[in-house]
Amino acid sequence: MSTNASPAPRVGGAAVRPAVVSDQVALRRDRLSSVLRQLRDAGPRSRARLATDLGLTRSAASSLVTELEERGLVRAAGVERRGVGRPGTTVELDGSGVVGLGAEIAGAHVSAIAVDLAGRIVAEHRSAGDVARLGPDGALDLLVSLVREAERGVAAGGGTVAGLAVGVAGLVDVAREELVVAPNLGWRDVPIGALLRDRLPAAYPVTVDNEANLAATAEAVPGDPARRDVVVIYGEGGVGGGIVAGGRLLRGRRGYAGELGHITVDPQGRRCACGRIGCWETVVGLRALLEAAADPDDRVHDPAVPVEERLAEIERRAALGDTRTLAALDRVATGLGAGAAVLANVLNPAAVVLSGYFATLGAHLRPAVEEQLAAGVVAPDAGGTRVVISTLGRRAAVRGGADVALASVYADPILVPRRAGASEGA
Amino acid sequence: MSTNASPAPRVGGAAVRPAVVSDQVALRRDRLSSVLRQLRDAGPRSRARLATDLGLTRSAASSLVTELEERGLVRAAGVERRGVGRPGTTVELDGSGVVGLGAEIAGAHVSAIAVDLAGRIVAEHRSAGDVARLGPDGALDLLVSLVREAERGVAAGGGTVAGLAVGVAGLVDVAREELVVAPNLGWRDVPIGALLRDRLPAAYPVTVDNEANLAATAEAVPGDPARRDVVVIYGEGGVGGGIVAGGRLLRGRRGYAGELGHITVDPQGRRCACGRIGCWETVVGLRALLEAAADPDDRVHDPAVPVEERLAEIERRAALGDTRTLAALDRVATGLGAGAAVLANVLNPAAVVLSGYFATLGAHLRPAVEEQLAAGVVAPDAGGTRVVISTLGRRAAVRGGADVALASVYADPILVPRRAGASEGA
Repeated sequence: MSTNASPAPRVGGAAVRPAVVSDQVALRRDRLSSVLRQLRDAGPRSRARLATDLGLTRSAASSLVTELEERGLVRAAGVERRGVGRPGTTVELDGSGVVGLGAEIAGAHVSAIAVDLAGRIVAEHRSAGDVARLGPDGALDLLVSLVREAERGVAAGGGTVAGLAVGVAGLVDVAREELVVAPNLGWRDVPIGALLRDRLPAAYPVTVDNEANLAATAEAVPGDPARRDVVVIYGEGGVGGGIVAGGRLLRGRRGYAGELGHITVDPQGRRCACGRIGCWETVVGLRALLEAAADPDDRVHDPAVPVEERLAEIERRAALGDTRTLAALDRVATGLGAGAAVLANVLNPAAVVLSGYFATLGAHLRPAVEEQLAAGVVAPDAGGTRVVISTLGRRAAVRGGADVALASVYADPILVPRRAGASEGA
Repeated sequence: MSTNASPAPRVGGAAVRPAVVSDQVALRRDRLSSVLRQLRDAGPRSRARLATDLGLTRSAASSLVTELEERGLVRAAGVERRGVGRPGTTVELDGSGVVGLGAEIAGAHVSAIAVDLAGRIVAEHRSAGDVARLGPDGALDLLVSLVREAERGVAAGGGTVAGLAVGVAGLVDVAREELVVAPNLGWRDVPIGALLRDRLPAAYPVTVDNEANLAATAEAVPGDPARRDVVVIYGEGGVGGGIVAGGRLLRGRRGYAGELGHITVDPQGRRCACGRIGCWETVVGLRALLEAAADPDDRVHDPAVPVEERLAEIERRAALGDTRTLAALDRVATGLGAGAAVLANVLNPAAVVLSGYFATLGAHLRPAVEEQLAAGVVAPDAGGTRVVISTLGRRAAVRGGADVALASVYADPILVPRRAGASEGA
């Protein structure tokens, strides 16, 4: 994450604290954060229940809830009856006034989304086409125009933007906010952060990341142990990946973790867009599927036809029992499963999430992937790894971007100002 | 980590806190922990410097240091002169009285070690031989006798034991403290934790883990960013692995992460001890090396000869230019590097650490591993991943076990009692 991503220094972190800060402020920030996350992860509940959950006194819990209400992050919900005693009024996440923005530059589309703290989509804009041909400047112009449209949607609803995270289909140096290389866009050394700031002198923090990292963030569900350890395999023209381990995005030393598409699986195989031979995406990427499924002049190869329609055509042929289509799907499914088994031996994830075009064709791919996992993982019962078809579809990366932008609010609710009229002395 | 591993509930953790605990106690525990970790990670320094490092007032830092001194964890060191002003007395980790125990059941040896908080080895015991033939009960009898010897060494030095972590060469269900399957020992479903407790009614916490996870813990150096993201490839008869990502051991959903030896690399290859075909360890494990290097009646295959001597013989032949030996080493090195490149694409580690027999033969293996990394990793400069030859040798797993046992003291220094005579009111 770039420095912009966490404007609040972490409480208890060593070197980042510039001077002696009040422990009381730090402690209260931590507790506001705990209450907000508890409501997100465990659902609406009474102040008394929150106190029990978090080991707080009732008066402390009440005071924290009041402050979160004043900041527009929490609101009264229904009534809860637990055991004997008076029923308590429950509170729930509000957050309709606080919005995270996610945006994406992929091979076949540029998108932007606005999601509020309660998870509702406030605005969504998307432009499909051959993005490589736009070039970095053209793609960023388009992205910024979509972000501006999303901003207008947020403003119309009375909300404020907490931040923007932009995902790009390539290797991203997160600290330098630079796209290092994007084999499937044909770009190299693009200073995304600087180009973005030229076009978008935004009043909120902006971060840049690999799109599959953002997709993985969206698939890992906070508070759900079955979604704390997740590998997302993101199929487009190429193949990207994102890994969440122990609830945290796995970045590695320089932020290049999850380059699943470029694992060598067939040293005698085909040349990849990256220049190497036999990368996984030469076997399971969308280009590989289409080339196996149809002759070069077939309409499923036509870049002018939206990817969704071309995939629908593949599904139609599969449903009709077309031998060549079925063989191509079978080859991709087996290769996908073999790679998934490697990842499961290395990472023992709770879920391998098939995303992007793998999700669209998930019904065709899943059985062979499950078979390969059962056969290729040394741990009993495939180590408990399940195959999950993403329900976020092509929205996964932008959704994850919005989640990243909102994470700063969960970490430090004090970032959101009190509403006019709210007392300061909670 | 099993529940035993963390006797202190994490401060700030939600559901684990049984009731309202004093925030003052929790805050002080956190701060004692911060001071202790800062001295470990950043070295000896004055109270004033600690105050600056950690954003504390000077009087708070002094009081914390005094309490750590009373608990025997910190002691006066030398004098530090920084800029203008009075020179300050520095303090450093003491911890000679607090010891962690690590023990290991591997294919060819059973070992135990005692390491104090300052990292000094207090006792070390090791018994080499064919462990599979001992059976689980015999191996645990042996392990406990070595642990008892280590305990006597600790007691003779006036120390107390903080805990014991036992590593086993196989898949370990950490929560249930059970060895699920150990292909290279030929064991299955062994309740290590229960069998240990029968033999060792210890007064300290005992945990059970995969040996390569413990080795990875030992290789990841706290406080060193170049050692926060590490993959350890641990070569014995088979191949194990341990992954540290972002400074934390990567366990996965059920604790089976890091089963590197059973990644399928050659579907047309040889049958593995696990029953599958073409696992990585059938190409790069010690058995594979020896079979490629020498005929079955060659003495390098003799299980009665210690592994170290057999490896020395391989090195001697390589030095003499023996063609068959060199070809075998070359094959292993190439296979090792190809797998390392897969791991580097997935995890982008700062270091791939060659451990176990890979470390012994490291000089022969490293060039090809580096070559494969450079060729097979899509990120520029192999993503910054370096090849490191472990200097811990066959001691890595037990060393890591002792580190794990000591981690509880770093997390909660209050676990260590004040010395007789120390005041309670610091």
